[in-house]
Amino acid sequence: MGKTLKGIGASDGIALAKALILTEEKLNITNQKTTDTTAEIKKYHEAVEKTVSDIKKLITTSEKKFGPEKAAIFEAHQEIATDPEIKNDVEKLINDDKKTATMAVNEVMQKYFEIFKNMDDDYFKERASDVEDVKTRMLKHLLGIKIVDLSTIDEEVIIVADDLTPSQTAQLDKKYIKGFATNIGGRTSHAAIMARSLEIPAVLGLKTITTMAKNGEMIGLNGQSGEVMVDLSADDIKAFKQAEINFADEQEKLKTYINKESVTLDNHKVLVEANIGKPKDCVNANKYGAEGIGLFRSEFLYMENDHFPTEEEQFKAYKEAVEAMKPHMVVIRTLDIGGDKKLSYFTFPTEMNPFLGYRAIRFCLDNPEIFKTQLRALLRASAFGKLGIMFPMIATIDEFKQAKQMVEECKKELKTKSIAFDEDIQVGMMVEIPAAAINAENFAKYADFFSIGTNDLIQYSMAADRMNQQVSYLYQPTNPSILNLINMTIQGGHKYNRWVGMCGEMAGDKTAIPLLLGMGLDAFSMSAPSIPKARMVIDNLKYSDAKVLATEALKQETSQQVQQLVNEFLNKNNL
Amino acid sequence: MGKTLKGIGASDGIALAKALILTEEKLNITNQKTTDTTAEIKKYHEAVEKTVSDIKKLITTSEKKFGPEKAAIFEAHQEIATDPEIKNDVEKLINDDKKTATMAVNEVMQKYFEIFKNMDDDYFKERASDVEDVKTRMLKHLLGIKIVDLSTIDEEVIIVADDLTPSQTAQLDKKYIKGFATNIGGRTSHAAIMARSLEIPAVLGLKTITTMAKNGEMIGLNGQSGEVMVDLSADDIKAFKQAEINFADEQEKLKTYINKESVTLDNHKVLVEANIGKPKDCVNANKYGAEGIGLFRSEFLYMENDHFPTEEEQFKAYKEAVEAMKPHMVVIRTLDIGGDKKLSYFTFPTEMNPFLGYRAIRFCLDNPEIFKTQLRALLRASAFGKLGIMFPMIATIDEFKQAKQMVEECKKELKTKSIAFDEDIQVGMMVEIPAAAINAENFAKYADFFSIGTNDLIQYSMAADRMNQQVSYLYQPTNPSILNLINMTIQGGHKYNRWVGMCGEMAGDKTAIPLLLGMGLDAFSMSAPSIPKARMVIDNLKYSDAKVLATEALKQETSQQVQQLVNEFLNKNNL
Repeated sequence: MGKTLKGIGASDGIALAKALILTEEKLNITNQKTTDTTAEIKKYHEAVEKTVSDIKKLITTSEKKFGPEKAAIFEAHQEIATDPEIKNDVEKLINDDKKTATMAVNEVMQKYFEIFKNMDDDYFKERASDVEDVKTRMLKHLLGIKIVDLSTIDEEVIIVADDLTPSQTAQLDKKYIKGFATNIGGRTSHAAIMARSLEIPAVLGLKTITTMAKNGEMIGLNGQSGEVMVDLSADDIKAFKQAEINFADEQEKLKTYINKESVTLDNHKVLVEANIGKPKDCVNANKYGAEGIGLFRSEFLYMENDHFPTEEEQFKAYKEAVEAMKPHMVVIRTLDIGGDKKLSYFTFPTEMNPFLGYRAIRFCLDNPEIFKTQLRALLRASAFGKLGIMFPMIATIDEFKQAKQMVEECKKELKTKSIAFDEDIQVGMMVEIPAAAINAENFAKYADFFSIGTNDLIQYSMAADRMNQQVSYLYQPTNPSILNLINMTIQGGHKYNRWVGMCGEMAGDKTAIPLLLGMGLDAFSMSAPSIPKARMVIDNLKYSDAKVLATEALKQETSQQVQQLVNEFLNKNNL
Repeated sequence: MGKTLKGIGASDGIALAKALILTEEKLNITNQKTTDTTAEIKKYHEAVEKTVSDIKKLITTSEKKFGPEKAAIFEAHQEIATDPEIKNDVEKLINDDKKTATMAVNEVMQKYFEIFKNMDDDYFKERASDVEDVKTRMLKHLLGIKIVDLSTIDEEVIIVADDLTPSQTAQLDKKYIKGFATNIGGRTSHAAIMARSLEIPAVLGLKTITTMAKNGEMIGLNGQSGEVMVDLSADDIKAFKQAEINFADEQEKLKTYINKESVTLDNHKVLVEANIGKPKDCVNANKYGAEGIGLFRSEFLYMENDHFPTEEEQFKAYKEAVEAMKPHMVVIRTLDIGGDKKLSYFTFPTEMNPFLGYRAIRFCLDNPEIFKTQLRALLRASAFGKLGIMFPMIATIDEFKQAKQMVEECKKELKTKSIAFDEDIQVGMMVEIPAAAINAENFAKYADFFSIGTNDLIQYSMAADRMNQQVSYLYQPTNPSILNLINMTIQGGHKYNRWVGMCGEMAGDKTAIPLLLGMGLDAFSMSAPSIPKARMVIDNLKYSDAKVLATEALKQETSQQVQQLVNEFLNKNNL
C-alpha cells in the first residue's frame, strides 16, 4: 500500500495522474544601490506595464472560465499593480534612497503584504496573497525571470506545489489538470474557492507534499477525505480508478436533485436554500436549485466601500437579490460588523476578546443612523419580492424589541413619504448566542422566524474560539449540548408557529442533516454547491425515522456517540 | 437636596464628614542635562535609601493594621525600589546620556510602569500602581518635595483624591478617616481591597469628585450604593446620620449570623462558604463563619513563583488550608492558567480571543506532568482533612473523564509508595461553560459535585466579555436564560444525588440568593465578609416560598422582570 498524506479537502472529487511538481525559482534580490535613478524609475514603469498586461490576459481567461465574479480577483490585482500610493512609495525609495527598482518594489510591496497579513479578518488576510502574487509577478519582470504559463500544460497531471497563487489557479485547465495538492492553504483560500468553481479536486495544507511526491510519479488524490497517496501499488491504482468512477456516478445522480423538491419519503416538506455574500451569487444559487436564500450577509456593501453605503446603494443590491430569487424568499442579515470584521473608514475599539465584544446588533443599536439607513433600504427592496430581515447576535428580548422598534419607525417614515414596502415583511433573528437558544420560546413571541448560526453558537457554547487551532477539538457540532440548544430553538419557535432555519456550516453536513430534519428544522441554508447532496439525503429519508434518531441522539453523552448513531442510520438508509 | 455622584461602591458603610481634598503637587521634571554624573549617581542612591526607609516604616505600620499579607504589598515596593535592573538602567542613563537623576528615574520607572499597565492580567495591571507609587516617592525625594503623611490627620474627614496609592491607604486610621472617595479605581484595586480590610467605607471611580467637592465641606458617602453626595442640605445630613445608625445596627445584627447555621425557617439546610486565594485567607473565612471553602483558587502558587511550584510546595499550601478549615470541606480548583492569566516562566500562545482559548483544563490535559504534580499534592493533602478536587473549564464528558483518569493514576502511584490520601476524595467540576450546564445530567454520572462559576457562565452564555465596558449591559445574572442554565445544572446534579454549589459573585448577591435557594442550590461560596449577610437572608426565608419564587422567575422573559419579582419577594419578607 502507498503512503497517505492527510490535508484539508478543499474541492471534492477523485484524481489519479502524474505529479507535476512546481518549483518556484528563488528571487535573488541584492542589496545594490543605484546611481542612475531615472533608469530605475523607467525599469519600474516597464515592469508595471508588463504586469498589467499579464493581468489583463488573466481577466479575460478567468472571466471565460469562472464568470465575472471570480475575474474580479484580477481586477483587484490590477488595482494593486497600479496603486498610486505604492507607486509613490516605490519612486520615493528609488529617488531619495537610491534603491534599485527591484529592491524598492520588494520593500514596498512586502510592507503592504504584512499589513494585510496581520489583519484579524479572513477576508483581508486573503488580500495579502493578492499583494504577494502581484509582487512576485512584478519582481520576475524586473529580474527577467520567465513566468511559467500553466495553460501550456498538455498532459494529464496533478499539480503539486507549496502554494498556488490566484493567477496560477486561473490558468488551470480542467482538461489536463486533474487535481492539485499543496503544502499550505485551507478551505477558504483563493485556491480552494477557485478549485471548487472549476470543479477540480484539490487537497491543501498537506505540509510536505512537495517533498513526499516525486515528479512524474502516479499519485492519487481524494478531495473529499482530504487525502493524497504517493508510492501507489497496483491495487491502490485500481482502487483510485474505481473511486473515480463512483464519484462520477454520484455527481450524475446528484444533478438530478437540482430541480427536485426537498421532501422526505413520507412527504415532510422542508426548504434547501443558499447562503450568499453578494447579489450576483444568486446566479449560482439558482443554478444549484436553491429554494430561497437563507442568509444574505450584507457586510460586503460595507467592507468593499470606503464609506458607509448609502440607502440607495443598499436598496439596489437588495432589490437585485430579491428579484433574482423570485418567488423564493431572501433573508438578509443586517450589518454584522465589529469583532474580527473591521471597516477602513470607521474606528472600532481594540478589544481583548473581539468575539465577545462590541459587534453586530450591539453596534447597530448604538448607531441608529447607520442601522436605520440599512433598514429603510431593506424595506424598500421588500416591495420587489419576498424579503426577510434578520438581526444578528441577539442575546436578550430587549435587544430584539429595540431593533424591531427601529423597523417600525422606518416603516412609518416610508409611509409618510408614500414609498412602497411589503407590509407583511417578516422580521426574525439569528440564534447564535446560547442565551437566545435557551430563551427561544420567549423570543418566538416576538420574532417571525429563527435562523440558527451554528458557527457562533458552537463557539460560545463550548467557550472555544473556532479560529484557534489549539482548542479546535471542541468544535463539535454533534455534541449533545449543541443538539439540545438547537432542539430548544426549534421547539421554541414551533410553539408559536414560527419557521426555524439554519444557516451555519452544519446545515449542509450530511451527518447532521438527519438529526436536524428529525428535530423539525424547516429550512437548511448552505453554500450553493452543497444543495444537491443535502437534498438527496433529505429526499431519501423518512421524517418519522429521523425523529426517532434525533430523540435518541439528544440523550447521548458525547459527540462520538451521536456520530456513531448517525453513521449507522445513514448506512441503514444506503446514504 | 444635595448633588449625588455615582461611582463604584468598593467598601460598605455610611460616612458623613468634612471633605479633605488631597491635591498632588505636580512633579516638575525639567529636561536639563548634567555635567557632574558622579553627583547625580550619588543623589540617586540617596533617594533610593530614603525611599527604602519610608517603605520599611510602612511595612511596620501596615503589618500592625492589616496583618502580614497586606504588608507584603510594601515588600514588593521595597523590591521595586532596590531592583538591580532598574538601578542598572538609571545609572546607564546618567553615565552614558548625561541625564539628571530625576530624569533618569522618571524615564526608567515610567517604562516599567507601562509594561505592567499594558498586561492583560488584572493582577499585573495592579503591579503598575505599585511601580508608580515607588516612582512618585523617589521623585519627591529627588525634588525635595515634602511627602504628606496621612497618619498625622487628627480630625474626622472623608478623603477625596484622584486616586489613593497603596502607601497612602496603609496610613489611613479608621478613627479619623471616615471614608474615601476617588475619581478613579474599581472594586479590585488595591485601595478597594485595603478599604474593605480596614472596614472604611469607600466609593471609587467617581470621575469628578475632586472638582465637585469643596475642601472642608460636609459630604456624605454610601459605600453600598456607590454614591457620594455634596452640597448637603440639613435634611440630607439628617438622612445620612440616620443611615449611619441603621448601618451600624445592621452590622451588629449581621454579627449574630457569624456563628449560626445556614438554615431556612422551614428547616432546609445549606452551606455558606468562602472563596479564597491563599491558605492564609482561611483565618478570615473562619472569622466570618464560613462553613467550608467552596473555591480555593490555586493560581497564586503559580503566579507568585518563578517556576512551576513543586509537589512539596503545593502540598504544604493545600495541607495548611485543609487543616485550618477542619472539619469543613475545602474545594481546591486545579490550575486555571492561560487566557488572561499568564506566567512569567512559561510562554502561552498569543490568542485573538484568550477567553475562548487554551486555558485551564485544556492546558492541563495537554501538560500531564504539570497537572499530575498538582494532583499528587492535592491527594497527599487530602489525608489531613476534607479536600475536594475541582476541574475548571470542563466542556465535554471526555475532558472530565480524562482528568479523572489522571487522578486515578496518581492515586495508584501514591499507593505504590504507601503515601496516605483520602480514598473517598470527591472529584468534581466547575460548571462555567454553557455546554456543561446543558449536559449537566450526563456529567452528574461521573462528577461527585458541581460548582457553578457564574462569571464565566454569564460571559459565554451572553457572548459578552465581562471586562468589556461596551457590552457590560449584557452581564445579567438574573436573565432567565442564565437562571435556566443554573437550574439545569442543579436538577442534573440532584438527579444523581450530587451536591451543587456556586462560587461566582452571584452566590453572595442578596437579590440572587432567594432564587438560588429556591432552585435547590446546596452551597453558596463567596468572599468571606459577605457571609453573614447571605446567611441572614437564608435564615429568614422559607424554602417553600423560595421554590415558588424560582419557578415563577424561570418563566420570565427578561432580567428586569426577574429582579422585580425578587425585590417584591424580599420586601414581603422584610429583607
